[in-house]
Amino acid sequence: MKNTYFTPGPAELYPSFYTHLQTALDEQIGSISHRSRRFQDIYRHTDEQLRLLLNIPATHRIFFTGSASEVWERILLNCVEHESFHAVNGSFSRKFYDYAQSLHKFAHLFEKPFGQGFDAADIDVPEYAEVVCLTHNETSSGVQMKPADMHKLKRKYPKKLFCVDMVSSAPYPDLDFGLIDSAFFSVQKAFGMPAGLGVWIASEACLEKAERLQQYDSLTIGAHHTLPTLWKNAQTFETPATPNVLFIYILGKLAEDFNQIGIANIRRQTEEKAKAIYKFLEGSEAFEPFVKEERHRSQTVIVANTRRSSADVIASARMANMVVGSGYGKLKDSQIRIANFPATSAEQVEQLLRQLAR
Amino acid sequence: MKNTYFTPGPAELYPSFYTHLQTALDEQIGSISHRSRRFQDIYRHTDEQLRLLLNIPATHRIFFTGSASEVWERILLNCVEHESFHAVNGSFSRKFYDYAQSLHKFAHLFEKPFGQGFDAADIDVPEYAEVVCLTHNETSSGVQMKPADMHKLKRKYPKKLFCVDMVSSAPYPDLDFGLIDSAFFSVQKAFGMPAGLGVWIASEACLEKAERLQQYDSLTIGAHHTLPTLWKNAQTFETPATPNVLFIYILGKLAEDFNQIGIANIRRQTEEKAKAIYKFLEGSEAFEPFVKEERHRSQTVIVANTRRSSADVIASARMANMVVGSGYGKLKDSQIRIANFPATSAEQVEQLLRQLAR
Repeated sequence: MKNTYFTPGPAELYPSFYTHLQTALDEQIGSISHRSRRFQDIYRHTDEQLRLLLNIPATHRIFFTGSASEVWERILLNCVEHESFHAVNGSFSRKFYDYAQSLHKFAHLFEKPFGQGFDAADIDVPEYAEVVCLTHNETSSGVQMKPADMHKLKRKYPKKLFCVDMVSSAPYPDLDFGLIDSAFFSVQKAFGMPAGLGVWIASEACLEKAERLQQYDSLTIGAHHTLPTLWKNAQTFETPATPNVLFIYILGKLAEDFNQIGIANIRRQTEEKAKAIYKFLEGSEAFEPFVKEERHRSQTVIVANTRRSSADVIASARMANMVVGSGYGKLKDSQIRIANFPATSAEQVEQLLRQLAR
Repeated sequence: MKNTYFTPGPAELYPSFYTHLQTALDEQIGSISHRSRRFQDIYRHTDEQLRLLLNIPATHRIFFTGSASEVWERILLNCVEHESFHAVNGSFSRKFYDYAQSLHKFAHLFEKPFGQGFDAADIDVPEYAEVVCLTHNETSSGVQMKPADMHKLKRKYPKKLFCVDMVSSAPYPDLDFGLIDSAFFSVQKAFGMPAGLGVWIASEACLEKAERLQQYDSLTIGAHHTLPTLWKNAQTFETPATPNVLFIYILGKLAEDFNQIGIANIRRQTEEKAKAIYKFLEGSEAFEPFVKEERHRSQTVIVANTRRSSADVIASARMANMVVGSGYGKLKDSQIRIANFPATSAEQVEQLLRQLAR
């Protein structure tokens, strides 16, 4: 019997994934040239569907990388000459900061304890920070930052480039790309695909910055997947190197499915399922929500403290063919993480909660 | 009716690819955590099978990236402090050189005209070049460099790191990893998989270099997929970021299939099919082999000049459900490229040659 994966990524595959994969195999998408008209049509379709789904304007382009982690590096290389600013409250926002240090950028850190979140009012961005790096959904701690706070912050610092990690929440957050310069995600989270593809959205302002930095002898914007090369190729729906054509095709089809359902419905369903999970956790003797402030509670990766060992909880759920994630890092044994992505239905969530209630 | 792809990558999928994909879906490999024991077992299996297939010793480790193009950048960042040397005779060896320039390395260029190849005796490596970048199979021109020449060169310059692009030929070239420090390929060529995974083989000597460079303030070895991070994670068959788990699984299974056939048989079959193709081209009025020197003729990507427009040749083959590649770049209209990978059988090659003979 198959398991249902409530893990925060890799996660449950979206139900229609299998059909799209089969169509792709029937059409031999795995063999077509990435320099063919057929590939350009695939890129164009995926671009169109993602634009519609995430409300991405013509000022921004959509690129494909090997992973979202790769995008951390690309943004820092292409958009930061000297200084970046990082709001850090967990392992993944911390890794973005670590990447900046590895690249010898002067990285400003504003850190909050694990489980706490950021509001616009908390954050003072240092004067010389060029890029503000925010994480919409911190996968390790289950903390979210509200898009409204991100937008407010950008209005306060309009000249800085704002960049949002939406790895484990896209397409849930309703970002205003009139304000947000760059965002990125990977497909093995809320899009319900296997891992192996990152998606990077970047604005003309990011491109201008990269083109300027490219002129300098004192630094490099990298060689692979530089923003100017990606941008140039994307104008004709091409890529500088051979991309994951098969996954780009499937992502476009899944985005189309999401658009059929409607992004408003997907967001509402996500919130309803999250509400059910948090309500259960709050009413439970065996669990409690890890994140105290309701407005900072993630809608897509829900973290709970467990009274008994989380290994027991996970093992019991597994016996019932449901897979939940363990806590991250040091909290592995005292927390569980429940992904709330579109691939799992309200009924499946109810089933999980009944199991956890035992 | 399905086409048979003789294109130099993306290419025909290996026949057993479909079975392995189905097994992976049945086992929900697309959903498992990359931090699980199950994933470690998959990485270990793929590592073991590639080691056996390519005769990779314990001094070298095997890593996974988004593409082979990414590996160009990783090698240059991690192994070159100041100077690299590039033997260039086509578009892909040239791109490796371009990457070095983008990274502000002092890149030495030794270039031969398109269609010509390198012997050991041709090459003088400049004194301060730290890494020698060779291309076993130049996909754009159909020129190969014999492993024996690479080994000879390394013996002449034992202190330099030797790095081999085997993107469109692995597992065909019989590299001696007692001499070759690093090599890399992507899976959409001779392994018969869809694009989306690069494989990087690197030695302890490469790691030592990277660890040394990492100490310097004056340069960066990058942030994503740095060699020290990849190496540290690979010791427990883990990866620093979420990799393409599904494709790593399938690659391991295909490598196992290749090992069942035996690498000697695969190499012999490759050579026999190549011989048939070159023999046909030489005897034909409509075609001729582009590469004049027999020892420089690729066994895996065969380039032919066409008497009539290559577009006509390609269109006719397409009518018979066979897809051959066009010439690369400027030679698009006057050449065809025929991939000779394990996925296409001797019978399919015969069928293609009968079609081309019409």
